[in-house]
Amino acid sequence: MQANRIYNFNPGPAALPLAVLEEIQGSLLDYKGSGMSVMEMSHRSKEFDAILNDAIARTRRLLQLDERFHVIFVQGGASLQFSMIPMNFLADGRSADYVNTGTWATNAIQEARVLNKTVNVVASSEDRQFTYIPRDIVFNPDAVYVHLTSNNTIRGTQWAAFPDTQGVPIVADMSSDIMSRPFDAGRFGLIYAGAQKNIGPAGVCMVIIRDDLLKRVPANLPSMLKYTTYTSKNSLYNTPPSFAIYTVQLVLKWIEETVGGLGRMEALNRKKAEVVYRGIDGSGGFYRGTAEPASRSLMNLTFRLPSEELEQRFLQAALQAGLGGLKGHRSVGGCRASLYNAVPMEGVEALADFMQTFARKNG
Amino acid sequence: MQANRIYNFNPGPAALPLAVLEEIQGSLLDYKGSGMSVMEMSHRSKEFDAILNDAIARTRRLLQLDERFHVIFVQGGASLQFSMIPMNFLADGRSADYVNTGTWATNAIQEARVLNKTVNVVASSEDRQFTYIPRDIVFNPDAVYVHLTSNNTIRGTQWAAFPDTQGVPIVADMSSDIMSRPFDAGRFGLIYAGAQKNIGPAGVCMVIIRDDLLKRVPANLPSMLKYTTYTSKNSLYNTPPSFAIYTVQLVLKWIEETVGGLGRMEALNRKKAEVVYRGIDGSGGFYRGTAEPASRSLMNLTFRLPSEELEQRFLQAALQAGLGGLKGHRSVGGCRASLYNAVPMEGVEALADFMQTFARKNG
Repeated sequence: MQANRIYNFNPGPAALPLAVLEEIQGSLLDYKGSGMSVMEMSHRSKEFDAILNDAIARTRRLLQLDERFHVIFVQGGASLQFSMIPMNFLADGRSADYVNTGTWATNAIQEARVLNKTVNVVASSEDRQFTYIPRDIVFNPDAVYVHLTSNNTIRGTQWAAFPDTQGVPIVADMSSDIMSRPFDAGRFGLIYAGAQKNIGPAGVCMVIIRDDLLKRVPANLPSMLKYTTYTSKNSLYNTPPSFAIYTVQLVLKWIEETVGGLGRMEALNRKKAEVVYRGIDGSGGFYRGTAEPASRSLMNLTFRLPSEELEQRFLQAALQAGLGGLKGHRSVGGCRASLYNAVPMEGVEALADFMQTFARKNG
Repeated sequence: MQANRIYNFNPGPAALPLAVLEEIQGSLLDYKGSGMSVMEMSHRSKEFDAILNDAIARTRRLLQLDERFHVIFVQGGASLQFSMIPMNFLADGRSADYVNTGTWATNAIQEARVLNKTVNVVASSEDRQFTYIPRDIVFNPDAVYVHLTSNNTIRGTQWAAFPDTQGVPIVADMSSDIMSRPFDAGRFGLIYAGAQKNIGPAGVCMVIIRDDLLKRVPANLPSMLKYTTYTSKNSLYNTPPSFAIYTVQLVLKWIEETVGGLGRMEALNRKKAEVVYRGIDGSGGFYRGTAEPASRSLMNLTFRLPSEELEQRFLQAALQAGLGGLKGHRSVGGCRASLYNAVPMEGVEALADFMQTFARKNG
């Protein structure tokens, strides 16, 4: 079957590796001789156990996690994590530091405050419309954690390096750049990522927790909102989103075995982003990147055209050329190319060519 | 492609209609000419909007819901609903009635109590190991709601008819019998169902809420734990589990268009259960149903054999004969045939034949 696929620059849910989709397709009626789909399989079967444990083992290897870390799968997306994190870690009288770099960070702060938790916003880039990542931040040494959003899908900014928090554990929303590059996980207390951008479909959130933070979890939380429920039962307290976890497992396998690990993944992602940023910067002002250059994201490349009318025409013509998902977030407008892990270099080159041609014709 | 499928009697995740799996398989690389999988598609695209709204429209038609009802999709399974229900509906000083018919009802009661909510257990079948559905229950007229579990997967019991609660809204966990039969939804304030038994894969919970209960939702709840977040945004406040919702949509379409609605679904389910119960009751005591006859479930048929050793042999021989998922829940042992909507009559007949032969050889 030769499917008519487009190049998909969606911000999430987003492109998946074609090889992963083909493997899912091939196993959809009969997974490895079990006579059933993974969707129809007991989450307590040996087949699903192997899927789950393989996804965890690959995560540990890819991120080089030591034995202090637990890898769990939670439902509700990053948005539920905004609540679970303060619920689980901030006892009365304790506080956390938050860095506000845009919509998702703002939501994380709000959700903590709804719970009457004490949150200190130690830095914000709101003064320049979230177009940069703050520097030289002074953190509170007695904060339980420092929360940051590693990549900002809407404004197209990304932390190039993580700040020195003087030993306070970093809690990071990595929904839009998890597994896109290597980093030193040792300084993180918790990492969370809705899967639907870099590692899988919507409906599952990967959470990586360090042991010392688990000790802060209070006893009197609802089971499904308590990290220890997941860590003590290997994410099988109740039925997990098994098919989504299966897809994540296949994507992680693809990153590890086909791409060759996070070093190579980053090199590829860096090359992809360079091709498009070069096109933007070399367009003589026709395209204008919205993020400050030092804070530019390798995942979500946001740009404007000379007018909104031209932006509309750009989006339509791109779609006709087989380039989809380039519309900017509805809260900011403009254009955005999301170049997540699964977006292939051919697609990026096709986009850059298209952009050049469009600028020439309309500039 | 001719896949080697078994008859799947799993208690959940469970069998899906073959036609649904084939449709998913066919659209996996290119959904309706979009050039991408539903997994890769924006949850704010017109294609996904059509999927979501069709799933809702079919639910409304199948259950004959009037305009007071909202249909939403939530993550976290029924287990998260155990917490969300009291969190959203039980203000200080108010209480709810709960009927305890087994493990899941017990968990629902526990999760409400963890939140310091006032819960009155007005009836329980724990005295006879949850083998029956309580009758002649006296409800508290000032309860905010009456919570019950419509079908009990572990003990194989089911409410044949719902109790008269004197106008107090019923809140029902229908995870294991939603869409298996028609019922009068008008008396229900909230219905919830993890999809992974009768209507889809794991990873999405259908919740049906009546307007008057929404008025009780307090303002200061985390967004993801507040029903009004979902009802006001048509389940699109954040990225929903889109592929799971797509699968639910296809199953509902199958129930409506292929089976012919809930009346026919019930007739078929009743016939399927009769075939197996007849085999149990006609086995001269070789098979022994564990639920009291008047409370028997049409969905999960639980039975024992003369010895645990014979049960082991039964399960092994059944699997060799292409009949899978017949093991009882690990907390009670024995055998269990789950005959959810998607289990075909041929499979049920194959099971009944197998049971008869096994009894003859080993009786």
